[in-house]
Amino acid sequence: MYDLIMKKRNGTPLSEEEIRYLIQEYVKGNIPDYQMSAFLMAVYFKGMTEEETLAMTWAAARSGDMVDLSGIKGIKVDKHSTGGVGDKTTLIVAPIAAACGVKVAKMSGRGLGHTGGTVDKLEAIPGLQTSLDREKFVDIVNQTGISVIGQSGNLAPADKKLYALRDVTATVDSIPLIAVSIMSKKLAAGSDAILLDVKTGSGAFMKTVEDAIVLAREMVSIGENAGKRTMALITNMDRPLGCHIGNSLEVIEAVDTLRGRGPEDLTEICLELAANMLFLAGKGSPGECRVLAEKAIADGSALDRLIAMVEAQGGDASVIRDTDRFAKASFEHPVLAERSGYIGAIDTESCGIASSMLGAGRETRESPIDHSAGIILRSRVGDYVEKGQVIALMYTSDKRLLEGAERRYREAVTICRQKPEKQPLIYARVTDAGVEKYCQNDD
Amino acid sequence: MYDLIMKKRNGTPLSEEEIRYLIQEYVKGNIPDYQMSAFLMAVYFKGMTEEETLAMTWAAARSGDMVDLSGIKGIKVDKHSTGGVGDKTTLIVAPIAAACGVKVAKMSGRGLGHTGGTVDKLEAIPGLQTSLDREKFVDIVNQTGISVIGQSGNLAPADKKLYALRDVTATVDSIPLIAVSIMSKKLAAGSDAILLDVKTGSGAFMKTVEDAIVLAREMVSIGENAGKRTMALITNMDRPLGCHIGNSLEVIEAVDTLRGRGPEDLTEICLELAANMLFLAGKGSPGECRVLAEKAIADGSALDRLIAMVEAQGGDASVIRDTDRFAKASFEHPVLAERSGYIGAIDTESCGIASSMLGAGRETRESPIDHSAGIILRSRVGDYVEKGQVIALMYTSDKRLLEGAERRYREAVTICRQKPEKQPLIYARVTDAGVEKYCQNDD
Repeated sequence: MYDLIMKKRNGTPLSEEEIRYLIQEYVKGNIPDYQMSAFLMAVYFKGMTEEETLAMTWAAARSGDMVDLSGIKGIKVDKHSTGGVGDKTTLIVAPIAAACGVKVAKMSGRGLGHTGGTVDKLEAIPGLQTSLDREKFVDIVNQTGISVIGQSGNLAPADKKLYALRDVTATVDSIPLIAVSIMSKKLAAGSDAILLDVKTGSGAFMKTVEDAIVLAREMVSIGENAGKRTMALITNMDRPLGCHIGNSLEVIEAVDTLRGRGPEDLTEICLELAANMLFLAGKGSPGECRVLAEKAIADGSALDRLIAMVEAQGGDASVIRDTDRFAKASFEHPVLAERSGYIGAIDTESCGIASSMLGAGRETRESPIDHSAGIILRSRVGDYVEKGQVIALMYTSDKRLLEGAERRYREAVTICRQKPEKQPLIYARVTDAGVEKYCQNDD
Repeated sequence: MYDLIMKKRNGTPLSEEEIRYLIQEYVKGNIPDYQMSAFLMAVYFKGMTEEETLAMTWAAARSGDMVDLSGIKGIKVDKHSTGGVGDKTTLIVAPIAAACGVKVAKMSGRGLGHTGGTVDKLEAIPGLQTSLDREKFVDIVNQTGISVIGQSGNLAPADKKLYALRDVTATVDSIPLIAVSIMSKKLAAGSDAILLDVKTGSGAFMKTVEDAIVLAREMVSIGENAGKRTMALITNMDRPLGCHIGNSLEVIEAVDTLRGRGPEDLTEICLELAANMLFLAGKGSPGECRVLAEKAIADGSALDRLIAMVEAQGGDASVIRDTDRFAKASFEHPVLAERSGYIGAIDTESCGIASSMLGAGRETRESPIDHSAGIILRSRVGDYVEKGQVIALMYTSDKRLLEGAERRYREAVTICRQKPEKQPLIYARVTDAGVEKYCQNDD
């Protein structure tokens, strides 16, 4: 191990065998944390070659269960978002893809910190099970085209151990290590193709478009080299996505969007994500796939797939058919504009924290969640507001949480005289062939 | 600690307080090794400022006992060599300095790997104690002007712990960390001034003169900023120093040198080191100090100081008065030249390993030492040898060790047709004011 640290420190690439040794012995506990953390810091400074990154991704994937989805007929496309605030796209995109004949067998995470998790959102639906055995999972996908469950079993334990170490040694924000971490779980999860949604902006891990593109290229390269068709969209997370933040609130907005009544930004991103998933599955040209995706919303077939999945996973689909039936939070509290002007910015991370403070998120992995808590944005970036106008509604079951959350939300919102410039919603598409800039879809 | 790793990783200097926290909490065990090793790797890449290096040196020095030498009258000058093969300079230089009225209260180390240690050499003298209590140590220096003992007590335990971690995480060869490690022990050891002998070449840690100068500048800067007059000589360790390698063999050569009959290279380096120690103690101009040092050899006063010290530390000084009285090794084995030609190079590290293999060194800290084992070089770099001529004599108490050691020694020696170019013996002198190149003293 000493030699491997030295090699990396001196900028000499490691062989596939050396990387495999490193990961295997670390998981077994034969390489101590203090050597691994020195290695990771050397990677932070020296980076990794395409070959090293691929080798490490495979080694981390193979450190645990490799999910076998061969029992599912058809092409399985996975989708991964690097995480954001108000990001309910999976609940919309996966049903659209399923309605168009693509299989989506997805394992999602829970929320932590300011970002939400799809599993928490799904659990806002009464009765819905997110912990299913593999056989049942495969059955549901075969039957409904879609199933979304929590990460079960022993998926990429090397990644789990490495991430915990990176988290305390300031080696999290190394692009190759982030790419390895995400892609190891994707390779283990067993789909045929992968669409990545790499978020950029104030609420995202990648603060700049340039960094997001570098990360996307690394991940696409790993995926393609591992034999899976892989693409990435670079999307805006400089403001919350859609108007709803919080678990049941986001399910409601997802259903609205599947009914064709969602906010413009959310609808547009979801149609593009879904179209690209269809494209990865070989359903036609990008243009044709986009038409298919729009049709799945227009004809209700996508919503139908969501309902089918909810029922198959034991959930009460009546809340999907009529979202008014969702349990309401005990308290609704309006946030009023402190002065007149344009909403110049809404800091996404603070917004997510405010929602979390209302009970929608959790402090530690064990904290309970208030599924009905959250925020509805009534005014969004670029809107003109009058002093005293309601700019947001806060929901919670514990009145005492309102004051702190409101303060945090106010701090997140900037009201200014000038109308802010429009920002692109989607910046680029990254494929094995390169980076295509997107036209502005946001006007 | 996380924030401190992040800061260093991003190239932001840490405050004195932060550095102190880091070292104190690490020694207490409140900062885990895996965070410290990530920090050290970040230091490897980002370096440290003069202020950070000084703060870390003080923090490491103060992590244990600070030796109080105030009971010793006069100016106490310490001398430190970065380690080499055949480096018996302390045994010569310290008596010269003492003979000229400078106090030398020195704590030395033991040998490990291919380099020897002064304490092991001294223990080749029958009866000599290297483990004395502080009071006795001070008494002897007051009485004889000189005492050399092993590192006792709890000297810079932070450095001990840090070094053990660096040793297994490929962070040993960071110049600021080396400087901190050496200087923390020097600050704790309590002398008023410090002369550093920074070795460079195949047998030294610093392989190039440039690196040796950078290290010397760092150490001089720490010493001066800590309020101690500090200087360094950059000396050649591309070949063994003198002709004798091994413990009693080196004492014998040191005595020969103090009698004015030592090899030219060893004599010259010792005179320069001693002259610079005298200069640090304010004994005159560099030229005057050099004359004083030469005189101390010529009039026998330096040898007299060594004898006084040996006696004061309980040693049998008869072996110093007549070095033939040293115990002889059971086996003497000549190494013959395999062909005629010039000795082009003698790899210093291999030479040290060969001597160690004969019993002169130790594999682990607990291994016993054969004090009479070692090598006498009969032919040195630049000498012409005939095939079959004796180029070295090997000494050991265990005949079985000869074969491997001889093979190793042969590999270390290059015989070639052309006479090799002369190398400088001393490259430069580094002071607070800058670097002065030395004239060639070696012709």
